Amino acid sequence: MSSSVVTVVAPVNIAVIKYWGKRDEELILPLNDSVSATLDTSVMCAKTSVFASSNITCNEIWLNGKKESFSNKRLINCLDAIKSIAAKEKSVDDDFLSWNVRVCSVNNFPTAAGLASSAAGYACLVTALAKLYNLKSDVSCVARLGSGSACRSVYGGFVQWHAGTDPSGKDSVATQIAEASHWPEMRALILVVGDKAKKTSSTRGMNITAQTSELLKHRIQHCVPQRTTSIIQSIKERNFPKFAEITMKDSNQFHAVCMDSYPPFVYLTEVSHKIIEIIHKYNDLCGGIKVAYTFDAGPNACLYLLEEEVPKMISIIKHFFPSTTPDNLVTGLESTSELVSSDFLEKLAVTAETKKDLIKNVIYTKVGQGPTEVTDGSHLLDEHGLPLNNIE
Amino acid sequence: MSSSVVTVVAPVNIAVIKYWGKRDEELILPLNDSVSATLDTSVMCAKTSVFASSNITCNEIWLNGKKESFSNKRLINCLDAIKSIAAKEKSVDDDFLSWNVRVCSVNNFPTAAGLASSAAGYACLVTALAKLYNLKSDVSCVARLGSGSACRSVYGGFVQWHAGTDPSGKDSVATQIAEASHWPEMRALILVVGDKAKKTSSTRGMNITAQTSELLKHRIQHCVPQRTTSIIQSIKERNFPKFAEITMKDSNQFHAVCMDSYPPFVYLTEVSHKIIEIIHKYNDLCGGIKVAYTFDAGPNACLYLLEEEVPKMISIIKHFFPSTTPDNLVTGLESTSELVSSDFLEKLAVTAETKKDLIKNVIYTKVGQGPTEVTDGSHLLDEHGLPLNNIE
Repeated sequence: MSSSVVTVVAPVNIAVIKYWGKRDEELILPLNDSVSATLDTSVMCAKTSVFASSNITCNEIWLNGKKESFSNKRLINCLDAIKSIAAKEKSVDDDFLSWNVRVCSVNNFPTAAGLASSAAGYACLVTALAKLYNLKSDVSCVARLGSGSACRSVYGGFVQWHAGTDPSGKDSVATQIAEASHWPEMRALILVVGDKAKKTSSTRGMNITAQTSELLKHRIQHCVPQRTTSIIQSIKERNFPKFAEITMKDSNQFHAVCMDSYPPFVYLTEVSHKIIEIIHKYNDLCGGIKVAYTFDAGPNACLYLLEEEVPKMISIIKHFFPSTTPDNLVTGLESTSELVSSDFLEKLAVTAETKKDLIKNVIYTKVGQGPTEVTDGSHLLDEHGLPLNNIE
Repeated sequence: MSSSVVTVVAPVNIAVIKYWGKRDEELILPLNDSVSATLDTSVMCAKTSVFASSNITCNEIWLNGKKESFSNKRLINCLDAIKSIAAKEKSVDDDFLSWNVRVCSVNNFPTAAGLASSAAGYACLVTALAKLYNLKSDVSCVARLGSGSACRSVYGGFVQWHAGTDPSGKDSVATQIAEASHWPEMRALILVVGDKAKKTSSTRGMNITAQTSELLKHRIQHCVPQRTTSIIQSIKERNFPKFAEITMKDSNQFHAVCMDSYPPFVYLTEVSHKIIEIIHKYNDLCGGIKVAYTFDAGPNACLYLLEEEVPKMISIIKHFFPSTTPDNLVTGLESTSELVSSDFLEKLAVTAETKKDLIKNVIYTKVGQGPTEVTDGSHLLDEHGLPLNNIE
C-alpha cells in the first residue's frame, strides 16, 4: 500500500527584524519576535516530494541529488510532530501513520550561498508532509522545529514570527502581516558576495550571543518590541522610508550583538561594508531613503527597494563592483539597468573596486506567495517513491 | 622679558574600559567612566617645549617639525584654562600672564598610526604649560579640553577618568588607580596594522553613536559601571585573567556600538579580526587567559600580557603574520622570541597569512610613569623660543 507523491515548492524569506538567540534549543523557541518578507518562488525556492508506503523499510531522504541520513534530529522532530498532529486530527488511518516515508528535496539556488536555504527547505518539507497526512492545522510551529526561520516561510507576503511565551512553544508561530499583493512594488536584490570569511554557524553564533552578550538583553527587551510594532505599521502604511530605516538599523544591531559576543564573531566582510557605505551615500544623495540593506549570518546583502529604483541600483552595483560577465550578473526577474550620470556617481564619492567579481551574482526578486502544491506532475519521486533523474 | 624654556615628555595611554560618546562637546565631558594603562615614555612619548616672552607678538606652535596655526579651538581652550588657573592661583604675575607663548611638540612615533598621539600630545602640552605658569592644581581636566583621553595621560600606572556629573566638568577628572610599580610584570605589545580602512574620525564617530545607537544607552547605564568596578578590583588584586577578560569584552562592546550606529562604521579590518581569533584560540589552548587584545578607533591591536608570555606571543605573531624583515619587526623594549612547538601552532588551527607585512611593526612596551620634566637640557626651543634643529 502506498500514498500518492505530494510535491510542494516553498519560498525563502529574508528577515527585516532579525531572529538571533533562542530561549529553548530543542524546541527552537526564539528570544524575540522577528519579521520577514517571503520571496517569490519563481526565482528562488525549495521543491520537495514526499511519499509514504507500507513497502518502505526505513525513512529515506535525498537532498539536492544526494542521499543523506535521516538521523538528523531536527528532521525526525518535524516528521514526528506532523504524525502526532495527524494522529490527533485522525486525518489519516493508523496504518498510513505507521508507514515510512521517502523525501526528495532540491533548492534551485546554491545551498552554501547562505541564502536561507534551510528555511525554504523545512517549510517545504513540512508543508508537503502536512498535505500527505491531510492536516488541517497551521504547521508553522512544526516548520520551526526544523529551522527557526522556516516558520516564516510557511506564509507569503510579510510575516511575523511571534516569540511566544508558552514553554511548549505552541504560541511561537508565524502569522501573516500582509499579502504580497498589498505592496506590489516591493522588490529585493540579493547580492551574492564571494564567501571568504570563515563563518560561525547560526546555531553556534546564537548560543554564544545569548550566553555572553550584555547588549542582547537590551536589544530583546527594548529595541525589538518597538521596532516590530513600527515596521508592521510601516508595512501596513506602505511607508518605504520608515520600513527601510528600521530594516537597516536592525541588521546593524544584529551584527553589533555578534561583535559584543565573547568570543566575538563577524559575518560581514569588507565587501559587505562597502555595500553599506554605498547604500547610505545613495540615500543621502537622493535626499530620502530609497534602498535598504539587510545582512543575515553571512556576507551577502539583501537590498529591499521599490520597483522604480531597481534599474538605477543595478547600474550602481555594476559600476562599483565590476564583473567579468556584466551581462550575466543579474538573474531572476526581467531587469533593465538605467544609465546613471557620471556626475551622480562622482558625488557618491565611493571608490570603485578594481578587483572583479567581488559580487558574484545579483538575484532580482520580489515579495511572493507561501508554499504551493505542484500540480503539473513535476515530482521529484516516481510512483514507487524513488528519485527521478529529472530533478532540477 | 622671557621665561625659561620648559620641556616635558608625556606618555600615551591605552584604554581597557573605552571612552566613547560625549555628554558635552565643547567641554569634552564623557558619557561614561573609562580606565587605561599609561605606557612607558622611554618607548612612546610626546615631547613638548614651551616658552613665554613679552617679545612674542602672537602665540606660535610647531608640531612634528612643521609650523601649524594656533587657531585650533582645543589648543586655545587649553592655554586659556591654564592661564585662568594661574590667575586664580596668582602663581605668576599679571605681566607674565599677558605674554604670548611658543610651543614646539614632537611624537617619537607616527602620528597617523592611530596610536593615541593626541592624548600624549595634549597631556604633554598641558603639563609643560602648568610648569611654565607654576601651577599647583591638578591639570587632568585641562588636558581633557584638548583631547578627552589626554586627561588619563596626566598620570602614570593605571588610571580612571571619572565621567563626573557637574555641568562645568570640574569633576570630570582622572585619578590614579595604581602606580606602574604596583604590577611590574604588565606588558603591552602594540601591533601596528597597515591602515587601509577609511576611517571615521573619533569625534565624528562618537557623535553618531551618541545620537543614534540604542545599545550605547545600555552600555553606559549598565555595562560600563559594573566593568569599571570589576577591572579596578582586578588591577588592585593583580588578577590578570579577570583584567584581560573585561578588557577584551569592553573592546568588543565599543566596536559593537559603532556597528549599532546609524550609519554604522567599523574600525577593525580582517587583520584585526584575525588577531582576535588568534588570541582567543591561544588562551583556549593555554587553558586560561594569558593575553588580552584591545582596539581603539583603528585597526591596530594593543595586547596586554604579563612579561613571561611575551617571547611566546612574539613568535606566534611572527608565525601567523610573516614579515619581510622579521628581525626588525619588534621595536621598543629588549625582547626575545621563544620557539613555539609546531604541535602548538597546529593546534591553534589558524591559517597563517601568505601576504607579508600585514602587521608592519610590533611595539613592545610596559606600563610606565606620567609626564616628567626634561632636566637634561634637551629642549625643542632655544633660549629665544625658536625651534632647534635637533628635534627628534
